[in-house]
Amino acid sequence: MIVVLKPGLSEQEIQSVTERIQSLGLRAHLSVGKERTIIGAIGDERQLSDQTLESYPGVEKVLPILKPYKLVSREFQKENSIIEVGGQRIGGKKVHVMAGPCSVESAEQVLAAARPVKAAGATFLRGGAFKPRTSPYSFQGLGEEGLGYLASARESTGLPIITEVLDPRDLDLVARHADILQIGARNMQNFKLLTEVGKLNKPVLLKRGMSATVEEFLLSAEYIAVEGNRKIILCERGIRTFETGTRNTLDLSAVPLLKQLCHLPVFVDPSHGTGRWDLVAPMALAGIAAGADGLLIEVHPHPEVALSDGPQSLRPEKFRRLMEDLGKLAKALGREL
Amino acid sequence: MIVVLKPGLSEQEIQSVTERIQSLGLRAHLSVGKERTIIGAIGDERQLSDQTLESYPGVEKVLPILKPYKLVSREFQKENSIIEVGGQRIGGKKVHVMAGPCSVESAEQVLAAARPVKAAGATFLRGGAFKPRTSPYSFQGLGEEGLGYLASARESTGLPIITEVLDPRDLDLVARHADILQIGARNMQNFKLLTEVGKLNKPVLLKRGMSATVEEFLLSAEYIAVEGNRKIILCERGIRTFETGTRNTLDLSAVPLLKQLCHLPVFVDPSHGTGRWDLVAPMALAGIAAGADGLLIEVHPHPEVALSDGPQSLRPEKFRRLMEDLGKLAKALGREL
Amino acid sequence: MIVVLKPGLSEQEIQSVTERIQSLGLRAHLSVGKERTIIGAIGDERQLSDQTLESYPGVEKVLPILKPYKLVSREFQKENSIIEVGGQRIGGKKVHVMAGPCSVESAEQVLAAARPVKAAGATFLRGGAFKPRTSPYSFQGLGEEGLGYLASARESTGLPIITEVLDPRDLDLVARHADILQIGARNMQNFKLLTEVGKLNKPVLLKRGMSATVEEFLLSAEYIAVEGNRKIILCERGIRTFETGTRNTLDLSAVPLLKQLCHLPVFVDPSHGTGRWDLVAPMALAGIAAGADGLLIEVHPHPEVALSDGPQSLRPEKFRRLMEDLGKLAKALGREL
Amino acid sequence: MIVVLKPGLSEQEIQSVTERIQSLGLRAHLSVGKERTIIGAIGDERQLSDQTLESYPGVEKVLPILKPYKLVSREFQKENSIIEVGGQRIGGKKVHVMAGPCSVESAEQVLAAARPVKAAGATFLRGGAFKPRTSPYSFQGLGEEGLGYLASARESTGLPIITEVLDPRDLDLVARHADILQIGARNMQNFKLLTEVGKLNKPVLLKRGMSATVEEFLLSAEYIAVEGNRKIILCERGIRTFETGTRNTLDLSAVPLLKQLCHLPVFVDPSHGTGRWDLVAPMALAGIAAGADGLLIEVHPHPEVALSDGPQSLRPEKFRRLMEDLGKLAKALGREL
Repeated sequence: MIVVLKPGLSEQEIQSVTERIQSLGLRAHLSVGKERTIIGAIGDERQLSDQTLESYPGVEKVLPILKPYKLVSREFQKENSIIEVGGQRIGGKKVHVMAGPCSVESAEQVLAAARPVKAAGATFLRGGAFKPRTSPYSFQGLGEEGLGYLASARESTGLPIITEVLDPRDLDLVARHADILQIGARNMQNFKLLTEVGKLNKPVLLKRGMSATVEEFLLSAEYIAVEGNRKIILCERGIRTFETGTRNTLDLSAVPLLKQLCHLPVFVDPSHGTGRWDLVAPMALAGIAAGADGLLIEVHPHPEVALSDGPQSLRPEKFRRLMEDLGKLAKALGREL
Repeated sequence: MIVVLKPGLSEQEIQSVTERIQSLGLRAHLSVGKERTIIGAIGDERQLSDQTLESYPGVEKVLPILKPYKLVSREFQKENSIIEVGGQRIGGKKVHVMAGPCSVESAEQVLAAARPVKAAGATFLRGGAFKPRTSPYSFQGLGEEGLGYLASARESTGLPIITEVLDPRDLDLVARHADILQIGARNMQNFKLLTEVGKLNKPVLLKRGMSATVEEFLLSAEYIAVEGNRKIILCERGIRTFETGTRNTLDLSAVPLLKQLCHLPVFVDPSHGTGRWDLVAPMALAGIAAGADGLLIEVHPHPEVALSDGPQSLRPEKFRRLMEDLGKLAKALGREL
Repeated sequence: MIVVLKPGLSEQEIQSVTERIQSLGLRAHLSVGKERTIIGAIGDERQLSDQTLESYPGVEKVLPILKPYKLVSREFQKENSIIEVGGQRIGGKKVHVMAGPCSVESAEQVLAAARPVKAAGATFLRGGAFKPRTSPYSFQGLGEEGLGYLASARESTGLPIITEVLDPRDLDLVARHADILQIGARNMQNFKLLTEVGKLNKPVLLKRGMSATVEEFLLSAEYIAVEGNRKIILCERGIRTFETGTRNTLDLSAVPLLKQLCHLPVFVDPSHGTGRWDLVAPMALAGIAAGADGLLIEVHPHPEVALSDGPQSLRPEKFRRLMEDLGKLAKALGREL
Repeated sequence: MIVVLKPGLSEQEIQSVTERIQSLGLRAHLSVGKERTIIGAIGDERQLSDQTLESYPGVEKVLPILKPYKLVSREFQKENSIIEVGGQRIGGKKVHVMAGPCSVESAEQVLAAARPVKAAGATFLRGGAFKPRTSPYSFQGLGEEGLGYLASARESTGLPIITEVLDPRDLDLVARHADILQIGARNMQNFKLLTEVGKLNKPVLLKRGMSATVEEFLLSAEYIAVEGNRKIILCERGIRTFETGTRNTLDLSAVPLLKQLCHLPVFVDPSHGTGRWDLVAPMALAGIAAGADGLLIEVHPHPEVALSDGPQSLRPEKFRRLMEDLGKLAKALGREL
């Protein structure tokens, strides 16, 4: 890291900073300029994390040089991670689409979504049994009952399932049913949950928090990886900005940026990203054009009576047409659907 | 709520929306304009929460009229809530200051912070035993051991303690030691944790999430209140914006806004709000001038070797001088410290 | 608009609001609910603009119903606007790419960019002669001299040119040379400049301000349209958010949203949108997949010595390869390049 | 500045970067680490501005060390700037309040605002004759006629006046009438206007742009200073964030931060900062507690019929009470009103 000193320090004060740097196991390399003196602190700064030098007397600011995450970084592993689950390979040439209702509402509703999404070419069924809701008065999900409906739909259609886990205490239960565990945006920095999921040998789809930087997103993935679980899929789902025309601002530039910085598969969720069904199709296409490995899309047989997120859910017929367009796009880009 | 219809609907289509509104238990009141027809849907829209009409055919948008929270609202209870804890009354004329280190590092460090903050007039000791850290390589807190050090410091100084809980599984343990439970910004929408804390009879300080609107903040408080626990203190601690000169942007206008909308005490955390010790004092004064009921301030005997948040921690001597200034300010505003 | 009244008003107070609404030329339509009374104020609320009722006694809030812009809206004109300029038609099936250096630096540099972008299929040459720079110590552009170099490059290559105008006092000069006038993000709300440009009969490319909502963007276009100039191209170029991994956050969902709300062509600038040349190609592809009518891309023969925006400029060779990929993508989506 | 190199460069590639740094007039100082090599580029990096090294082959990133502004910085001038205007000294112990209507609407309206604000202790009269309005259909100000009304009010009350200038072409006219020129948030990066105002010998109040960082704000002030005009007052007026409960988010931590970084007086505008009259008083108090040198407050004799910004305007009676509270606060903090 680079330690920038305040102007006008005495030699003794500079010496004191230098010694502090050395006491942390780093080498100190001094550069004296006309307006500022800086010290290059050379060594593995990650181990220092927050034990920063910024509050040391005489220090103006500290600029990190190395990226703070390691296991998930492209420098640690050059080739793309491929995640094998439910007979599918995620992270390769094939574009995967995980589709289904926001909330599991009944056995019938899940099946009525699962069948057409399977027919249209989706490779995974999504559906929430435990739901994080902004208001305590909103429908909170069917819980274990909902997991059962998802499992039945898997049996009927052959689609492996992805579903969200909210609480470390539910982890065993959810992991028994799910093929892929989802950690939602609100839990991206629920570090206890990340740690527990890191101890399992089961794929995890980690959604970006709505105010998380790309660096923080990768650090949350690192929490999982450091416990041993490397089967991590990242998912951009929109960040919070001043714009109110859409529910969130889908940050598609995060897709190629993440692909540069890490070796994990990157998905896009245009349903939460926009909050409007009429923007889902163009943003799904844009996500794949930006280089995403797959999509998470909400499909509901009857959005107008959905218990959650109706406004952003596609009807099966619209989903089918989107899949056709995605197929053409994927082909033009040298991918397949 | 107001339901705005798309232009050019047939009478039958309008009728269909009207019936849907009535089926949800609301009365429908039609207003036909030249460019748009709108329907006032009259009744308690809170019960509908997300089961929105926005995806119903013919509906352009839905504008809520009622506030989505109830128990914490000023309309539900006109007078300020006073929370009695550790012999103190929070929410009245007296300004409370909760001070201490970010992380509990040792028995000595806690005491070395607790004694001078008590002497300077702080009424509560703060300190983190379970720490939510962005990087898995950062110091994660002493856990139960740290809770013991806090309890000892309480015994020595008489200061009641406030400390953070991260995980529902730690709740019993933390609640045994703490006088006030803190729920941090990253857990403001950890709804399972909110629900569990709501079942206890113990004061909770709930921090605003870094990208939470004031309305979402109050809905999270409502999650606690709806379970029976009304001893809730809200705390503004900075929101995430584009500005990088400070760690967060301390949104002080949220203080008078919250005081208008709800009856709960409102605190300000200028340490996390700015991330810079040299901005803590002016923002602490500003927080009280804006109408806050109290402050949460990080004080460390030796910020330059702190294991977390050194750059935003005050030395005891600076804290003492801040308390003097706060005393004068409080008096001028008809408050007391 | 909907006027929500405070709870507990007397009949006389409600009457007073009603009369105020009527005095503004609107009809008032009362709906009495249990918790709130609302008044639908029916008529053309646009004329009231900011003369709002929000500060009228007894009024809690005012919710607008109609969109505040008119001439640029899809409701005013259903079919897409096609802008004919320099022998090209913008806004139809063909995807247009405007490429060239950020700043005009010399006659040679412009030509060295213009020739390869023309060869690769660009249909317009971009280049800045008047540059808005954050620092007064930065290169401010060659001014009139630069306009001459652009005109020469047009003569050599046949490419019509687009260049920015900053100041109403330069408008005549710039308009004499340019085929399309560009109004930059920092001037999106320079209403005097918008008004002057509105009086010309020359195409204008209007960039979205870095903190402008889509609605404000359209209102700025309306400023131009209301003066008579309807040859307006909108350009999304990234908004300012908390993310620091990219220079701005390219808001591609604004593209389909703008196409829904208005009839104007919509372009995307992935160079400013990301600030990084290595993200330009994926975001250019994503922009077209999202439905954009064209792209604005910075190409510099030697980015490493560019006087501005080197880090986001493509070398001609990389631009050529991007154009090939764009061609395939456009074809797959039923467009052409 | 610090130049971080990509990993794995050859000696020759490193040599090439070093030579490029030297060709820019800086000394290059190499530090070789295990994971990264960095070069300290020592000298005045400000002159390089955007001619950055970031696009040079082999360079991973560039970290600036020096602040990019100079004349306005606290390092350039240690003591506070005092601006003398209209018999007042701005920037010293005395807190100044500039009050009056958002827009000048008539001679009577200006006087009806000016008299009570003078009586309550305001030292300047504010009022807009040229108004930047989001919508072309909104009241755009009375222009020259309005300037005359302001001048009359100055004659009647003795209050010097501050008013906004939007366009370089109006500058002579506005400067003839105004004691202080205001440059609004939307024009903070209208560099042509800044340059022209910099050539005058007249105080300027420069408002922070709604998405401007503190550093960009100071660079805009530098644009004025570099032309010779050092009579600059900065004004925080709220930034744009995701929060919709207030019109903007008043960033009060910018006040002490600006006071640290520069020597100019800093004002706060709680009217635009919050957009709600009922939050103006607490945020005015908070602004002064945070260390501001003065306030800009909208006062209208009849906010309910104001042609602009009624919702955020105080009635004279409320303003009078606020001034009393400000007086007590100022005294407690060792200031005077």
